[in-house]
Amino acid sequence: ARTGFAEVVYCARKADEHLLNIYQKLYEEDGEVFGTRASEHQYELVKKVLPDVVYDPVSGILKIEKEKEHIGKVAVCTAGTADISVAEEAAQTAEYFGTHVERIYDVGVSGMHRLFSRLDTIQEANCVVAVAGMEGALASVMGGLVKRPVIAVPTSVGYGASFHGLSALLTMINSCANGIAVVNIDNGFGAGYLATQINRLAEGK
Amino acid sequence: ARTGFAEVVYCARKADEHLLNIYQKLYEEDGEVFGTRASEHQYELVKKVLPDVVYDPVSGILKIEKEKEHIGKVAVCTAGTADISVAEEAAQTAEYFGTHVERIYDVGVSGMHRLFSRLDTIQEANCVVAVAGMEGALASVMGGLVKRPVIAVPTSVGYGASFHGLSALLTMINSCANGIAVVNIDNGFGAGYLATQINRLAEGK
Amino acid sequence: ARTGFAEVVYCARKADEHLLNIYQKLYEEDGEVFGTRASEHQYELVKKVLPDVVYDPVSGILKIEKEKEHIGKVAVCTAGTADISVAEEAAQTAEYFGTHVERIYDVGVSGMHRLFSRLDTIQEANCVVAVAGMEGALASVMGGLVKRPVIAVPTSVGYGASFHGLSALLTMINSCANGIAVVNIDNGFGAGYLATQINRLAEGK
Amino acid sequence: ARTGFAEVVYCARKADEHLLNIYQKLYEEDGEVFGTRASEHQYELVKKVLPDVVYDPVSGILKIEKEKEHIGKVAVCTAGTADISVAEEAAQTAEYFGTHVERIYDVGVSGMHRLFSRLDTIQEANCVVAVAGMEGALASVMGGLVKRPVIAVPTSVGYGASFHGLSALLTMINSCANGIAVVNIDNGFGAGYLATQINRLAEGK
Amino acid sequence: ARTGFAEVVYCARKADEHLLNIYQKLYEEDGEVFGTRASEHQYELVKKVLPDVVYDPVSGILKIEKEKEHIGKVAVCTAGTADISVAEEAAQTAEYFGTHVERIYDVGVSGMHRLFSRLDTIQEANCVVAVAGMEGALASVMGGLVKRPVIAVPTSVGYGASFHGLSALLTMINSCANGIAVVNIDNGFGAGYLATQINRLAEGK
Amino acid sequence: ARTGFAEVVYCARKADEHLLNIYQKLYEEDGEVFGTRASEHQYELVKKVLPDVVYDPVSGILKIEKEKEHIGKVAVCTAGTADISVAEEAAQTAEYFGTHVERIYDVGVSGMHRLFSRLDTIQEANCVVAVAGMEGALASVMGGLVKRPVIAVPTSVGYGASFHGLSALLTMINSCANGIAVVNIDNGFGAGYLATQINRLAEGK
Amino acid sequence: ARTGFAEVVYCARKADEHLLNIYQKLYEEDGEVFGTRASEHQYELVKKVLPDVVYDPVSGILKIEKEKEHIGKVAVCTAGTADISVAEEAAQTAEYFGTHVERIYDVGVSGMHRLFSRLDTIQEANCVVAVAGMEGALASVMGGLVKRPVIAVPTSVGYGASFHGLSALLTMINSCANGIAVVNIDNGFGAGYLATQINRLAEGK
Amino acid sequence: ARTGFAEVVYCARKADEHLLNIYQKLYEEDGEVFGTRASEHQYELVKKVLPDVVYDPVSGILKIEKEKEHIGKVAVCTAGTADISVAEEAAQTAEYFGTHVERIYDVGVSGMHRLFSRLDTIQEANCVVAVAGMEGALASVMGGLVKRPVIAVPTSVGYGASFHGLSALLTMINSCANGIAVVNIDNGFGAGYLATQINRLAEGK
Ligand SMILES: Nc1ncnc2c1ncn2[C@@H]1O[C@H](COP(=O)(O)O)[C@@H](O)[C@H]1O
Ligand SMILES: Nc1ncnc2c1ncn2[C@@H]1O[C@H](COP(=O)(O)O)[C@@H](O)[C@H]1O
Ligand SMILES: Nc1ncnc2c1ncn2[C@@H]1O[C@H](COP(=O)(O)O)[C@@H](O)[C@H]1O
Ligand SMILES: Nc1ncnc2c1ncn2[C@@H]1O[C@H](COP(=O)(O)O)[C@@H](O)[C@H]1O
Ligand SMILES: [Mg+2]
Ligand SMILES: [Mg+2]
Ligand SMILES: [Mg+2]
Ligand SMILES: [Mg+2]
Ligand SMILES: [Mg+2]
Ligand SMILES: [Mg+2]
Ligand SMILES: [Mg+2]
Ligand SMILES: [Mg+2]
Repeated sequence: ARTGFAEVVYCARKADEHLLNIYQKLYEEDGEVFGTRASEHQYELVKKVLPDVVYDPVSGILKIEKEKEHIGKVAVCTAGTADISVAEEAAQTAEYFGTHVERIYDVGVSGMHRLFSRLDTIQEANCVVAVAGMEGALASVMGGLVKRPVIAVPTSVGYGASFHGLSALLTMINSCANGIAVVNIDNGFGAGYLATQINRLAEGK
Repeated sequence: ARTGFAEVVYCARKADEHLLNIYQKLYEEDGEVFGTRASEHQYELVKKVLPDVVYDPVSGILKIEKEKEHIGKVAVCTAGTADISVAEEAAQTAEYFGTHVERIYDVGVSGMHRLFSRLDTIQEANCVVAVAGMEGALASVMGGLVKRPVIAVPTSVGYGASFHGLSALLTMINSCANGIAVVNIDNGFGAGYLATQINRLAEGK
Repeated sequence: ARTGFAEVVYCARKADEHLLNIYQKLYEEDGEVFGTRASEHQYELVKKVLPDVVYDPVSGILKIEKEKEHIGKVAVCTAGTADISVAEEAAQTAEYFGTHVERIYDVGVSGMHRLFSRLDTIQEANCVVAVAGMEGALASVMGGLVKRPVIAVPTSVGYGASFHGLSALLTMINSCANGIAVVNIDNGFGAGYLATQINRLAEGK
Repeated sequence: ARTGFAEVVYCARKADEHLLNIYQKLYEEDGEVFGTRASEHQYELVKKVLPDVVYDPVSGILKIEKEKEHIGKVAVCTAGTADISVAEEAAQTAEYFGTHVERIYDVGVSGMHRLFSRLDTIQEANCVVAVAGMEGALASVMGGLVKRPVIAVPTSVGYGASFHGLSALLTMINSCANGIAVVNIDNGFGAGYLATQINRLAEGK
Repeated sequence: ARTGFAEVVYCARKADEHLLNIYQKLYEEDGEVFGTRASEHQYELVKKVLPDVVYDPVSGILKIEKEKEHIGKVAVCTAGTADISVAEEAAQTAEYFGTHVERIYDVGVSGMHRLFSRLDTIQEANCVVAVAGMEGALASVMGGLVKRPVIAVPTSVGYGASFHGLSALLTMINSCANGIAVVNIDNGFGAGYLATQINRLAEGK
Repeated sequence: ARTGFAEVVYCARKADEHLLNIYQKLYEEDGEVFGTRASEHQYELVKKVLPDVVYDPVSGILKIEKEKEHIGKVAVCTAGTADISVAEEAAQTAEYFGTHVERIYDVGVSGMHRLFSRLDTIQEANCVVAVAGMEGALASVMGGLVKRPVIAVPTSVGYGASFHGLSALLTMINSCANGIAVVNIDNGFGAGYLATQINRLAEGK
Repeated sequence: ARTGFAEVVYCARKADEHLLNIYQKLYEEDGEVFGTRASEHQYELVKKVLPDVVYDPVSGILKIEKEKEHIGKVAVCTAGTADISVAEEAAQTAEYFGTHVERIYDVGVSGMHRLFSRLDTIQEANCVVAVAGMEGALASVMGGLVKRPVIAVPTSVGYGASFHGLSALLTMINSCANGIAVVNIDNGFGAGYLATQINRLAEGK
Repeated sequence: ARTGFAEVVYCARKADEHLLNIYQKLYEEDGEVFGTRASEHQYELVKKVLPDVVYDPVSGILKIEKEKEHIGKVAVCTAGTADISVAEEAAQTAEYFGTHVERIYDVGVSGMHRLFSRLDTIQEANCVVAVAGMEGALASVMGGLVKRPVIAVPTSVGYGASFHGLSALLTMINSCANGIAVVNIDNGFGAGYLATQINRLAEGK
């Protein structure tokens, strides 16, 4: 496409027939196809006509992916284990667009020693995606430790005054660490897309 | 008093005459007197009748304080330098109530090395007061590092989506670290009071 | 653990297999295991491999607990009967960590005579946990009556403008009584943890 | 007037000339005149043409009031001293409309003994006006103690998460005590008006 | 009771056994019993032991009511038909407490001619309960037409920016008409209770 | 211009020199010039170079206006007198764009008889602009009475829970009357512009 | 009707019997009937007695519609495909009231070339309805391109910080383009009604 | 510094003496110094000791800047002229850090033709900074036109429901265009910093 990015399907709320058409059309054109926020039901549906389709219930990604080269390096990190579904949306999106991804999960403030043990990998990446719910402090901690851009993804993980991700979003937008940019709550796709844009620039693409 | 705490004057919005009466009455009864959120004008006013009164323009505290023993240990920490005014309200309140206070300022996520260099002092305290504005991540970081209670004080430092401290308040209330309790935005007094209650328990008072 | 607190399982949203692994691993290491926010389904699941596991549908706690000494005294109070589920999360958490707990339920402003009949017990505690939804006035009332720290837990009990606990949270954060610290809406676990930290200090631990 | 209530002037934001006209016209018609939220400047202005006008800087009331009978009984209570300006707006409004008012100030949760010492007066009133800022718990406490209607007036007294009276408003709207109705933040006039309506009904007017 | 009001059961969220006990106990003591927010299931349950119990699915009221005198007059009005469930909670609560109620439904701004055709009844009432969702303008219109107190009940009827009743609540709290007091969103019970308190005063009780 | 509307100057925050340039340039091009939200200072400034400029301190409009024909009919109504400044911004904007305007001020719910006495004029207009602050009920009342479009302008008039116009905005957006469209708080200009667009269509322009 | 508009049924939450009665009555009176927000279940129900009734599951419209003339021109546009359900509510409402409608769907900022290819049609319309969720930028873009009124309909399409349409609503209310009026979130009916009012004026009705 | 970025002074709220010290120290160390949010007063102050200091009242930047190479290309765009102060903070920050900046101002939806006339420059940049207040639609428009990352900066420009930038922030976070990351309201500094990070990666630094 004009933007240099293959089209990605947002499966949520799509009618069955409509979804099938898109998957078939994109697969025919590109030999691969990638959708986010798919349900088990949509997986069963698509599998009937595209038997090679693969479904990841954690991230909700439904895809047929060609072998491809993955360039550069992006680090995708989460504060807790419940944030992994969003992180996988980010990581697999970036990979689909040809980015090499390192996953560094469950390294929030109650597991900061794990964060420090992976710090080299994080600091070498062209950009870091920091995925966190509840109070979202991971983005700030990360921003203080790396010199490359940090893409912060607030998640809806939490309860009470987390207000479905609003608290984490505000934390990240107000971070006093430098070099942090924020995307919408649970928007793993957006983070993976942006990380790819930055990674490509870094790799001279 | 019944609560074991001397009365403290909240100077903001008090009429001149009213303020003078309270300061004189408390000083006569106790030989000392302590007020928060006082203005320069109020300082000038009180000084005329109580020439020993001391004013700290940073914290807004206006006091005459007797020599007294300071027991136990409370660590009062800030993320940035702009949070010091609130931290001093906390620290001086605790000291007025007989608490020994350690000040550890400007140790937020962009100065985390400074935090680690003071970690011993922080971990030995009976309780920690964490004062931070903007995104307020300091409380979470602190909660992950100490085993004693952390009293988190959000401040109104920041701009834009910090919403005058609301963002920091939400961060702290949603912290995924354990052992964190929150007081009102800019409520240094409340934190110093609570820290004293905990410190006294720890010292067998 | 480094923090002096056994690990607690947050059961909500955990996959079956993952939950079973954690329960088995913790039980093998410690001879006991404690989880919050468990469902009936999770109880059935765990019972198959750990037949001694006990489930409390009111609080959602799923545990095998060793006999242990319970030290000091913490008073856990509720405004209404609907707040008891959160209060039990607090009380049983504190007990699991070795704290002696007194339960004083349904003593809100429409039952204040019941509060006064238990006042001695409340005033003797090392700290008080005040659990209340709707307008959350219990925390203020309590703060005016005791000289020890009050941990206020807003609950999502209520309707309309209670906004799922936000109203109670704001009430508690703004309390004009001294010595009140607030945790997240419905966060009984956090209150029980913090109460234990304070109780241990008071008992010289 | 058709409603049985004399017209009252809302002075805030009125242009000088406009204000003078209203004051003169009402005074000529009724031999008395009553305005709320007046400034010192407006007092000076009106005094030049109506030298008998009286100004109360605490409540902002600017009035010439005829001798009149005051019937029934309404109790106007405040939590703190900073709430008195709003309470006086309520009390003087009710008095202007011919209501007998009892003032019971500074009886919030940190001064509840004072509340109990005046309980007889409060319980005998035809209705109670409860004026409170910060967390606004006074309304709930009052509602639990009296069998007559309680008109709750949240005030903008407070700071931080009091959000200029929003917190007190939510507290009062969500009160679990029965018989509480709420007016706008700082709306002493509305409370005095409503109290008069109820008091008149009680006195058979 | 001390308050002069029979106890009312709030059925929502009550466990079956618990509910049965209360209904039986209150029926034995008083020969009648009244509960709000009951479900069909709770009706079936209670009917087994108290076959005379009557259930109104519109209001969710579950009651056995003795013949009694209904004194005075309260007008209960709604803006639309969807507000009737809340209005019935108010009306039947007031009736249970011995109040004579006039129902005037569906008289909102798009049916104002219907309002004017019933104006006499409304203006003769001791107090008016105005029940409205969406933008809640009925309360203001009513306040401009009657000289007795108006109790405004915002409802959660609406969609989009009605925010589950918040919009109507704000409308009513800010009304520029005099003599309006507000209760919580959907709180028909509270309005019926308060209307009874006022009606009793008017009838010299 | 391409849109058929002369350019209008938004004076607020414009630097002196910049403002002068725009006024001179537009006056030279069009023989007239029209600006909103101008200050006294800006009036003095522009008068020096364009002595014919006229300033209306109520609306903040600063203009030199040619004689022109005013077609059709638009009714601009306000709930109170404090809303007139916004209404005049709307009315004069529409007039500048060649619209015939009828002003019907101070006809809110407490002055509804005045509204009814002007109903004919209102119902004959091509469109109605309803300007109201506080609870903003005027728009709903108007929508129920006219069959032409109603443009609702919430104003920031009010205090407490009016939240600077938010309450009125929500009221208007949620109106259960048909044919109401809403513009931003205090946006008289936008309402006058839109009213002109509709009026022109009605007049076949 | 007095307003010149046939009555429309709001089916949501209507009881079966009640709904049937209205459909039968309106059909008998007018030979046609039109309802919004109907469910499949309601379709089955009405079909039994009015077999000619037609149901559109996308928009939720349930109608029997007479042949009629459609006058003028209104353009109904959407940003994405998920907004079509709301757009169809607007379009079919306008058509039911006799308006000629052009549909221009899926022309948001990521498909702006499609917008430009239909620009002539849009610019010739008497008024434009712009339907968009997420960030709602379509209304601003449209307002910059057309000289006729734009009715902006925010939709609840989106996730995270879209807050069920609040973000789109704020975008549209704050638009810096001129000639934009806003209706409630998802209020296709209101937009179709208003568009008809404007279209009729333009067509001299 | 470790991060590869020179230290920048946040001048707001800094005490005079403190500010002077920082400026002198940084100037001595680096031969240049750069501060944001400085006041006229602070300029006068610093000029006395560092006469070469330059102050830009539009952006509030106070700096002494060395000649340096500016690499790559970043496009800084604004919707209106009132957004230029924030845009200049971004542009000058990026320039101070060695970035080549193109300024493209006043190209919002009412001036979109100006945007299209500069499209080549925008599309060639390594990254785009989009600065907009009010409804903030510029970021979405930009995101639809460029394939490089867009850093969106909401500004507090606007009135009424713009809520000091919140509306623009929500618009930008919810953008349906891909490749948009958001920083805090008015945070030009943060955008310039992040743009530099991305530009450096693109230039192989
Ligand atoms: N109800 C609860 N609310 C908040 N935190 C909890 C709760 N129960 C357990 N936790 C915390 O969650 C941690 C376990 O999280 P996880 O690793 O996701 O099981 C525990 O160590 C506790 O700190
Ligand atoms: N619909 C209602 N909304 C609010 N409060 C109610 C309602 N129905 C009953 N109540 C109150 O709830 C009390 C009983 O609460 P509970 O002890 O939980 O059954 C009653 O005495 C009433 O004061
Ligand atoms: N009071 C107002 N509110 C909103 N927009 C206005 C107002 N007055 C003028 N405008 C718009 O602002 C544009 C001029 O903005 P500017 O170029 O900043 O002077 C005019 O063309 C109008 O579209
Ligand atoms: N306008 C600004 N907004 C946000 N952060 C800033 C701004 N200007 C400078 N900073 C940051 O604030 C730090 C300095 O803060 P301080 O130590 O308080 O002077 C700098 O290193 C920057 O990271
Ligand atoms: Mg960094
Ligand atoms: Mg800890
Ligand atoms: Mg206390
Ligand atoms: Mg009561
Ligand atoms: Mg009235
Ligand atoms: Mg109408
Ligand atoms: Mg336009
Ligand atoms: Mg793009």
